[in-house]
Amino acid sequence: MTSRQVLSGEALDAAVASLDAWTVREGKLHKEFTFDDFVGAFGFMASGALCAERRNHHPEWLNVYNRVRVDLSTHDAGGITMFDVELARDFDAIAGE
Amino acid sequence: MTSRQVLSGEALDAAVASLDAWTVREGKLHKEFTFDDFVGAFGFMASGALCAERRNHHPEWLNVYNRVRVDLSTHDAGGITMFDVELARDFDAIAGE
Repeated sequence: MTSRQVLSGEALDAAVASLDAWTVREGKLHKEFTFDDFVGAFGFMASGALCAERRNHHPEWLNVYNRVRVDLSTHDAGGITMFDVELARDFDAIAGE
Repeated sequence: MTSRQVLSGEALDAAVASLDAWTVREGKLHKEFTFDDFVGAFGFMASGALCAERRNHHPEWLNVYNRVRVDLSTHDAGGITMFDVELARDFDAIAGE
């Protein structure tokens, strides 16, 4: 079972390094995805929404035309947990398809 | 045909007044929608995305769980136009279904 323990220090560094170009910004896992157009961006969000709902773990995300800015944190844990790392990995996989 | 003319003054006031609880914030038509849960919020976004694509006029929108913050402006016109007012009206209709 995925831990709700907040990641910090080396554990957080290792988790971030395991992802594709995510950073930590304001205490959240952060990445900006860019697509060819709105259809590409919203297609990514539609797939991502299904992943998020299945995991019962949801992103904060901003969409402007072909760009999607994603920020992930675990609200009730007060920081970044493996729930966020796993959702980030889902999003990378979807964007890479 | 919808005008790309930027709305200001009384024309903007009248347009905003014709909508349901939108305001002007930082030069954009602004509204925050709240739904029961993520499924409600993303269902709204999915329908809204189809409207936006059909109109070839796209929102700036931020989703956090059951909330969707929408900001509308016409980038190439440099302000709020009837394109934004019409998309706002679509969004109100979708949210009210």
